[in-house]
Amino acid sequence: MIKTIYWENGIVKMLDQSRLPLETIYVDCDDYIKVAEGIQKLWIRGAPAIGIAAAMGLALGASDLSAETYEEFIKKLAPVRDSILATRPTAVNIQWAMEHMFDMLEKHRNESIEALKKRLKDESQKILEEDIEINRAIGEAGASFIRDGDTILTHCNAGSLATGGYYGTATAAIRVAHEQGKKIKVIADETRPVLQGARLTAWELMEDGIDVTLISDVAAGSLMLNGEVDLVIVGTDRTVRNGDVANKIGTYPVAVLAAENGIPFYVAAPLSSIDLSIKNGAMIPIEERDSEEVTNVFGRCRIAPEGVKVRNPAFDVTPARYVAAFFTEKGAFRPSDLKKLKDPAQDLEAIRIDTVSSGATTANDATAARSKS
Amino acid sequence: MIKTIYWENGIVKMLDQSRLPLETIYVDCDDYIKVAEGIQKLWIRGAPAIGIAAAMGLALGASDLSAETYEEFIKKLAPVRDSILATRPTAVNIQWAMEHMFDMLEKHRNESIEALKKRLKDESQKILEEDIEINRAIGEAGASFIRDGDTILTHCNAGSLATGGYYGTATAAIRVAHEQGKKIKVIADETRPVLQGARLTAWELMEDGIDVTLISDVAAGSLMLNGEVDLVIVGTDRTVRNGDVANKIGTYPVAVLAAENGIPFYVAAPLSSIDLSIKNGAMIPIEERDSEEVTNVFGRCRIAPEGVKVRNPAFDVTPARYVAAFFTEKGAFRPSDLKKLKDPAQDLEAIRIDTVSSGATTANDATAARSKS
Repeated sequence: MIKTIYWENGIVKMLDQSRLPLETIYVDCDDYIKVAEGIQKLWIRGAPAIGIAAAMGLALGASDLSAETYEEFIKKLAPVRDSILATRPTAVNIQWAMEHMFDMLEKHRNESIEALKKRLKDESQKILEEDIEINRAIGEAGASFIRDGDTILTHCNAGSLATGGYYGTATAAIRVAHEQGKKIKVIADETRPVLQGARLTAWELMEDGIDVTLISDVAAGSLMLNGEVDLVIVGTDRTVRNGDVANKIGTYPVAVLAAENGIPFYVAAPLSSIDLSIKNGAMIPIEERDSEEVTNVFGRCRIAPEGVKVRNPAFDVTPARYVAAFFTEKGAFRPSDLKKLKDPAQDLEAIRIDTVSSGATTANDATAARSKS
Repeated sequence: MIKTIYWENGIVKMLDQSRLPLETIYVDCDDYIKVAEGIQKLWIRGAPAIGIAAAMGLALGASDLSAETYEEFIKKLAPVRDSILATRPTAVNIQWAMEHMFDMLEKHRNESIEALKKRLKDESQKILEEDIEINRAIGEAGASFIRDGDTILTHCNAGSLATGGYYGTATAAIRVAHEQGKKIKVIADETRPVLQGARLTAWELMEDGIDVTLISDVAAGSLMLNGEVDLVIVGTDRTVRNGDVANKIGTYPVAVLAAENGIPFYVAAPLSSIDLSIKNGAMIPIEERDSEEVTNVFGRCRIAPEGVKVRNPAFDVTPARYVAAFFTEKGAFRPSDLKKLKDPAQDLEAIRIDTVSSGATTANDATAARSKS
């Protein structure tokens, strides 16, 4: 099982994903500056993963400080926090981690500085472990939809490498099914333009000894038409109130092709990725990224004429009607369950979820569920 | 307008497509060996284009021979032919060109050797010109389906560069519509793994001053969903009796996405690409190509882990029900028209084709036609 980031002998070890799959190098981060560099340079990426890295970075920064009082400690820790926040200013998970850590300190302000330093380190480890637990639970919810002998197609990397490690989100169901002894095969879309499928998903599944086959994105359709795919599982960057799913560009075509060929399409969605404040997919802003991602593979292999116009949307929106079920840490549920919520502001953790599956449910049931919805 | 290959001052100029789009170099072929090298090394590719190159190569080879009698001339020309045939042994168009040239010589065997040499050169030029005429006619048939202001999505390169030059097949309708003064835009799928869209289609349309935008294949779906595509035109490697279309991998997903979004999907099909001897698409053998095409972009930029398993089908089959119309040199027709043929062996040129369009027909009519078929 892949570790993305972890504590070892008081330093933080961070897998440099920017070198994958050509080199597997864990960078020794012995101060917070190195952690911040790793976040900024995308050695680590994925919303949960960078939140964990930020928390670990803060704990590292604290360990080097000397302070007599709580006030002095906080005053010296603030610039460390600000450096970490500045690495990726729009990353919600980093902001959440910094607030969470400072709130925790405030609660224990009467303890010794050494005790507080230990608390920071322990809390960062706890955030990592909770992330792994959430993903394991997502995997449990999803694995019941995978039958022995199934071939699962996935797109992009909603894997270990996007999280604290081990399970990932979309890959969690695959890994739990594999643990359960089901003989499964995975088809990984390469996922142009940034190739997360080729570089990351193929690599991490091979590392775990899971049977994985890489394809160009264009080949998914004919494999489905030929009956070579039993189900699809993808992740999500943001799922909104009506069940529409924003995810990596190319997810929508996979969903349409799956529907056309009677193949169930599942979305692994930690509750933190479900945004009830947005009514439907049309209201999700879609980032257009630099054209160089399309015209230069890895920024070093030019594939298109100089000066060519490019469109490079980073995400697309898959309408809820294509989704057979969501896999969450609270179980699996249908898109229609989301619509039942009366108060978008209510605590997601408290939502009662009608599970589609209670263990024996198969992919075919989900297909039936989809056609009824 | 792009020339793929042409005669100039007694030598053959061949565009080296393997260097596109980074360099635009016409290789001077002053003997048949250079032409054969170009065919073998894929400086020139595309079924019609390599047939033309083969004919020109034979004429070049003949020009250097000295012979007293017809028999001696043919005896000396045979090894030239065999060298050209050996460049790409399965290419039907090369075989056709060689047989056609030798048949032509036999008809004129009583003429002088100098006259026969001139005939070979003239005949190779005639094959080129006929190819351009066929493509122009395909363009006339297709252009009537393109409205002023339309955005056309295309996949792979069924362009000038796959033919003798100028119009191409799928691009012929685009170029004729452009000549007619219609303001059109083209979206070119990059077409992984070999990137013919990024390298060739984007380049040749830019050269002709046609508004073209490059996208990763994965982005076609969301552009269609967002209403940014009015019609799709692709080429075909082989269309069979029931109207199923074999074409570059990734064509089937485009067809499915077009259908899902109510966008008409057209196929530019020279009559020579329609194979009535095959009953349906399931019977078309699909070539799986080297995994390196997927794992190494241009053979020099590795994107995947060493040892990863790969599937790399080179073509897919789009069922006839997705095709709104075929554009041929005899007009546009529906897939159902193909099924009317009683004798697969009959001469395709003689088939009466019920045209869908007679000039005023729009893409919407074709959509209607599709939904009825």
